[in-house]
Amino acid sequence: MSFDDDQIDLSALKATAYNHRWAEAPDGVIPLTAADSDFGAPPIVRAALSAYAQRGHFGYAPPFGLPEFRSAVASFFSTRRDAAVPAEHIMATNGAASAVFLAARTVIAPGTSALVPDPCDFLLPASIEAAGGRVVRYPVVAGRALQMSDLESLIDSSTSAIFLCNPHNPLGFCHTAAEIDAVLALARARNLAVISDEVWSDIVFPPARFTSALARLQDGDRLLVIGGFSKSYALAGLRTGFLATGDANLAARAGELSRQALTVDGAGTAGQVAAVAALEGCGDWLQSYLAFLQARRDQCIAALAPVVGGPLRTPDATHVLLVPLPAGCTDAEAVAATMMSEHKVAVVPGTERWFGPAARGHFRISYATSERILADALTRIVRAF
Amino acid sequence: MSFDDDQIDLSALKATAYNHRWAEAPDGVIPLTAADSDFGAPPIVRAALSAYAQRGHFGYAPPFGLPEFRSAVASFFSTRRDAAVPAEHIMATNGAASAVFLAARTVIAPGTSALVPDPCDFLLPASIEAAGGRVVRYPVVAGRALQMSDLESLIDSSTSAIFLCNPHNPLGFCHTAAEIDAVLALARARNLAVISDEVWSDIVFPPARFTSALARLQDGDRLLVIGGFSKSYALAGLRTGFLATGDANLAARAGELSRQALTVDGAGTAGQVAAVAALEGCGDWLQSYLAFLQARRDQCIAALAPVVGGPLRTPDATHVLLVPLPAGCTDAEAVAATMMSEHKVAVVPGTERWFGPAARGHFRISYATSERILADALTRIVRAF
Repeated sequence: MSFDDDQIDLSALKATAYNHRWAEAPDGVIPLTAADSDFGAPPIVRAALSAYAQRGHFGYAPPFGLPEFRSAVASFFSTRRDAAVPAEHIMATNGAASAVFLAARTVIAPGTSALVPDPCDFLLPASIEAAGGRVVRYPVVAGRALQMSDLESLIDSSTSAIFLCNPHNPLGFCHTAAEIDAVLALARARNLAVISDEVWSDIVFPPARFTSALARLQDGDRLLVIGGFSKSYALAGLRTGFLATGDANLAARAGELSRQALTVDGAGTAGQVAAVAALEGCGDWLQSYLAFLQARRDQCIAALAPVVGGPLRTPDATHVLLVPLPAGCTDAEAVAATMMSEHKVAVVPGTERWFGPAARGHFRISYATSERILADALTRIVRAF
Repeated sequence: MSFDDDQIDLSALKATAYNHRWAEAPDGVIPLTAADSDFGAPPIVRAALSAYAQRGHFGYAPPFGLPEFRSAVASFFSTRRDAAVPAEHIMATNGAASAVFLAARTVIAPGTSALVPDPCDFLLPASIEAAGGRVVRYPVVAGRALQMSDLESLIDSSTSAIFLCNPHNPLGFCHTAAEIDAVLALARARNLAVISDEVWSDIVFPPARFTSALARLQDGDRLLVIGGFSKSYALAGLRTGFLATGDANLAARAGELSRQALTVDGAGTAGQVAAVAALEGCGDWLQSYLAFLQARRDQCIAALAPVVGGPLRTPDATHVLLVPLPAGCTDAEAVAATMMSEHKVAVVPGTERWFGPAARGHFRISYATSERILADALTRIVRAF
């Protein structure tokens, strides 16, 4: 499968791509909104899912995931993340967002607080609030080392957990191993849990390197790691993510809270079958996709850097880009509305609601589309500027 | 597709059928445990899911379900259940059990109580407890009209909802339209919600007739109906059910509680695609399956009626059968354990935990398997007696 312009099937996208994308955008508008791919899933995934469909046995799955799914994720951690996680500490979930909310409920008691980066995706603070906790934000800046003194000054007796978003959405940086070590050490010293959202970990552009928090784990660390397959393999609709931990007690507690043993919740088998095929058969595909995305990233920077109203750093990871508004503009929602109505390109405004206070004065685009569509969209954005 | 003995693929079942079934039972044991089919999904469903897989677009689905799913369920209610439900009052859920729990959270406030039939599946009382409510049980007896005075005497100022299980698991009866009318009228008079679990509604044997509570709805009724595709089309692993209501406020409240608009929860697209194919293309298949199951039901009754320790009524619906223990036996768990270890047949003990106090002195079997396997299993049960 190539990522040539002619691989984009706009009629299929108009029929299937929701969440503020092609199926919901007005005709003529290019949606650079939700972080999803316009290319569809890898051919090996399609074939594996089709074969599974034809075999026709869709009976009850085991709670916490198919054995082949849990062992494929364990193998992924050992071979590609230098992390030893037993399969029984890996739980399949109904999408990665659902794993974030389960992780929050597992370690954040009502009335306590938890730290999240500012900016970050709205799902992290939303998961704290859903658990009955209070959101405390610590600053993160792409290209600047994490300031541990910021985190330390925000921790008090009510703090129960620290979130990492790594690779970071929407800033596109990766935390260094030293930063992760420092956060784990701080959590250890203050008896806090760490929740590391690593859903973007497959989309990292060389020479940047990604380090999983699970690879830096020490005995006794209360660490929960979230992963998924939507970003790298375009499987969002199949709703399969996972929650992994090094701690047997945390695994047991998350398992009980999930109600998977009662069949009340759980991941569907189709998504797990697709994920296993992706993990086991799509290494070459993913390398090609990464090279393609890196070129699209550079295309965005080349087009936008000359016109934006602030510094535009080239991100190391993800296929999203946080773009400063034009000089003099502060109202991201108004800018996004004008871009949509007048320039026919949809972006996500950098409002506190979506990304936290630090995203103000920006909008976010997702660039996992063809070179031609992206060129068209960037022309429209530049015109809007 | 026939339902002949040679359609059973034991090696596939050993690899795929969980939840106390083939993949989990010791070798040589026939599992008549979880209510799932040994035949796999209808060929039309397999083909539709395979085609979907090959098209390869698995992007974000809309919250509350694909438009084609919601309209197929609405059409199912209008053409097969004589009930008018707008598509926007139908929500796809991550399995029917998840819809039960969402329904309970929607109408049962913490500290209030809700009525469930005794016996009934453990998921209904579990959903009340998960919502912070208190479980109150009203008696149901197959072949005897629902006694409204029982329900009336159990309602007090703390009551918030009444559950119906229709068709009833594990007793296999259908409520009459008059019974449903009486329950809705009582709920109306006392300002209660009604939650009708109709997940078995496709498996009803002529001349018995099923009436959906949605077909008896009056303006202002606070009714939530749960449905699914696992029982009739063997799709449990794909985890797709639905919650339907006649009330726009209830639909909105359930929608908000579901967090589907945030992508935190929702039904995967594969199960929805399979369900649409089942609803639109499997009418003839379902008729054949029903005729087959009716013969298996009669096979169970013929084998077991002579030996069981109490009356064994022929059920009108479902593919489960609640069987009285041998005369003089009261410990269902001990009987089930002996059947498993000595007679190599697995059944579900009629404990309070699984089915409520009224199931004591019974065990439950599911008979959605081939004539030959069922004959073998029944011989083992009779030998145990």
